[in-house]
Amino acid sequence: MEPLRVGLCGLGTVAQGVLRILSDNAAEIERRAGRPIVVTQVASRRMRPEVDLGDIGFSTDVRTIPGHPDVDVVVELIGGEDTALELQQAALEAGKAVVTANKAVIALHGDELFEAAERQGVPICFEAAVAGGIPIISAITRGLAANEVQWIAGIINGTSNYILTAMTEGGEAFDEALAEAQRLGYAEADPTFDIEGIDAAHKLTILAALAFGMDFRFSEVYTEGIGRISVEDVEYARRLGYRIKHLGLARRTDAGVELRVHPTLVPDYRLLANVQGVMNAILVHGNAAGDTLYYGAGAGELPTASAVVADLVEVARGKALLPRRQDGDGLEVVPIIESESAYYLRIPALDRPGVFARVATILAEHNISIESAEQRAQAIHTDRDQAWVPIVIVTQRVPERIMNDALATVQALSEVVGEITRIRVDDLDDA
Amino acid sequence: MEPLRVGLCGLGTVAQGVLRILSDNAAEIERRAGRPIVVTQVASRRMRPEVDLGDIGFSTDVRTIPGHPDVDVVVELIGGEDTALELQQAALEAGKAVVTANKAVIALHGDELFEAAERQGVPICFEAAVAGGIPIISAITRGLAANEVQWIAGIINGTSNYILTAMTEGGEAFDEALAEAQRLGYAEADPTFDIEGIDAAHKLTILAALAFGMDFRFSEVYTEGIGRISVEDVEYARRLGYRIKHLGLARRTDAGVELRVHPTLVPDYRLLANVQGVMNAILVHGNAAGDTLYYGAGAGELPTASAVVADLVEVARGKALLPRRQDGDGLEVVPIIESESAYYLRIPALDRPGVFARVATILAEHNISIESAEQRAQAIHTDRDQAWVPIVIVTQRVPERIMNDALATVQALSEVVGEITRIRVDDLDDA
Repeated sequence: MEPLRVGLCGLGTVAQGVLRILSDNAAEIERRAGRPIVVTQVASRRMRPEVDLGDIGFSTDVRTIPGHPDVDVVVELIGGEDTALELQQAALEAGKAVVTANKAVIALHGDELFEAAERQGVPICFEAAVAGGIPIISAITRGLAANEVQWIAGIINGTSNYILTAMTEGGEAFDEALAEAQRLGYAEADPTFDIEGIDAAHKLTILAALAFGMDFRFSEVYTEGIGRISVEDVEYARRLGYRIKHLGLARRTDAGVELRVHPTLVPDYRLLANVQGVMNAILVHGNAAGDTLYYGAGAGELPTASAVVADLVEVARGKALLPRRQDGDGLEVVPIIESESAYYLRIPALDRPGVFARVATILAEHNISIESAEQRAQAIHTDRDQAWVPIVIVTQRVPERIMNDALATVQALSEVVGEITRIRVDDLDDA
Repeated sequence: MEPLRVGLCGLGTVAQGVLRILSDNAAEIERRAGRPIVVTQVASRRMRPEVDLGDIGFSTDVRTIPGHPDVDVVVELIGGEDTALELQQAALEAGKAVVTANKAVIALHGDELFEAAERQGVPICFEAAVAGGIPIISAITRGLAANEVQWIAGIINGTSNYILTAMTEGGEAFDEALAEAQRLGYAEADPTFDIEGIDAAHKLTILAALAFGMDFRFSEVYTEGIGRISVEDVEYARRLGYRIKHLGLARRTDAGVELRVHPTLVPDYRLLANVQGVMNAILVHGNAAGDTLYYGAGAGELPTASAVVADLVEVARGKALLPRRQDGDGLEVVPIIESESAYYLRIPALDRPGVFARVATILAEHNISIESAEQRAQAIHTDRDQAWVPIVIVTQRVPERIMNDALATVQALSEVVGEITRIRVDDLDDA
């Protein structure tokens, strides 16, 4: 059969991985796809003389790829937003399939891209955009197609998970763990996108759109990073039977869909709690399959390229899914203030009789049930010219609004000597 | 669009789950499939008046389904071998797609069924045949299509995992744990298929055929059940940092493909070691994606039906994969005697000076390297009219043939007072 002819935009790490896989695993890929998959054109602004392209055509103008007569499918791996979006649109308008690893473009422009792809009757594939080598897009759109997905909880940012693992296993401080991640190439020089949760929010947007059949609602994702987690919190959480993980959570509720990215105390018996280092994992709860979990490398040259090439195989054998305009069932995103969660609280308070009772009373007055509470008398601090101790409380599920009110009152107590730390607790089984 | 018309053979648990999902999740399924999926005909030898079929046609003769004019796709859920095979063949010959959960029929007759399906150009789908609600067939054939799969290690029999978990967590004896599994409906009255590993061997056969592009070679799977695992072994393994799991293993080696099902000591840091109760999990190592793991319910009405309906959705949208005659790359199955493994050994020996040294010397003479060894002096037994102690040894990788020779010599020592227990140790990372 005729080969599938690929035009590759970008020649960075992942693109080089794609070239390598298509070459190394050519026989296996042809067996599965039913025909060869060959890269005919590559374009990259930057020349990369170190990459041997053989007789593949090369241009420094990526815009030549979508209209190129020797290209059946456009693989967009240049990253960034504007040019990448233009490339994808041009390819779709030319009636060519698009394969991309660009989570930002899909999360921010997925609706218009889907609309164009549907109008043209060509697929747009982005398995590589979420969780690298883990075929989670395929799992949600195919493997779990029989299910109404009720919630998704994922460790979908390897950098954050690496830092939290180092804090948990090695007792390292956040800054120390971040520096180590940067040294190892797991974090960028400017780590904002990863540690502030923006990258995870992009991915969560995509997962929610596919799982719930809703629009891509990136701007409505509640996003909180890991920058304020202390080693103390990690340690207290561990004693309480939890690990702190940075989760992306999408959940159907009666009010709509909750979309949130934040640090979370996960019970240590869950597999999710035991996902270490840069690995990713996504737990999906469907109303038929129950809990299923997908684990693997969330980034890296070959894992990400594995997902790109998997999409190419589907295109080659004519089995890629066409996007379907989402009607969304009128699903709305629930504002964080309307959501509910269980909470871990760490309250720095003067080491005086009656403080603990006062805090407990305020919570009780707000109808907040306490799961566990202790005043860690042995953890006495004297650094603020006063002797103070942390009061550590885990609450049951409580509406966000009520928690805000209660904590404002607690924070205002004269015995509370510093900012209260609040971290959500995984309550997925109670949802 | 025209609905996809389903003829359902069988009306047991899973079939009832299929009816329930198609009804409960009809809107979601139609959104994904692009058209409705409706059951038009049901056939079951046994009448089941308790199941409300509405206006679905019913027959007690399953043979009426494949040729029925109102049926586009035949779902075979009657189980067993002969009639099920006939049904599937009749459907394929009539040019209709087949969806089945029948692992035995696929493992034993996959080659001829694939041949017929390929000849007729219709799909045969069996996501439900392996690991219930976990979309592992889709992961291997689609999500990991870019990879040369190097090995697969799976907990693919929930009954065995339930029993081993009860032995590990509750310290129960094998018989006790089995009786409990039977009481809870996790094990059959005759549990042979599950605890002897035959069910797992069926599933491993299917995974290997798809992952490696080889024929279905059930008769060549080396199969060992969990009946000889003692609580003592579970406890010693735990102290050494392992859990005993019943694994299905398929691995490419230079000599061919190893296919084996047996109890295995898995390091406790692996997620696989932490898969509890009736849950299943499959770890796949691909040369591009690296390790990916898939976890979920391996059986049960709704999880299994979830997989059946996922296949129906693929058929409905025309995206089910056509089987491709496997050329197998000439892959041969390596006989167990030619394989290599690390081993856990428990040797019941007289509590006398010199015995330990004698055993170590025999292993050394066979060039078997010892990873750890101890004589458990505190575990003294006196039940055989003699005082004896277990010698517990973990070896490094060693060819099976050499281990057999060495153990025959050890077993023949006059100080060895009972049968040596040998359990393989997970050495996947060294493969």
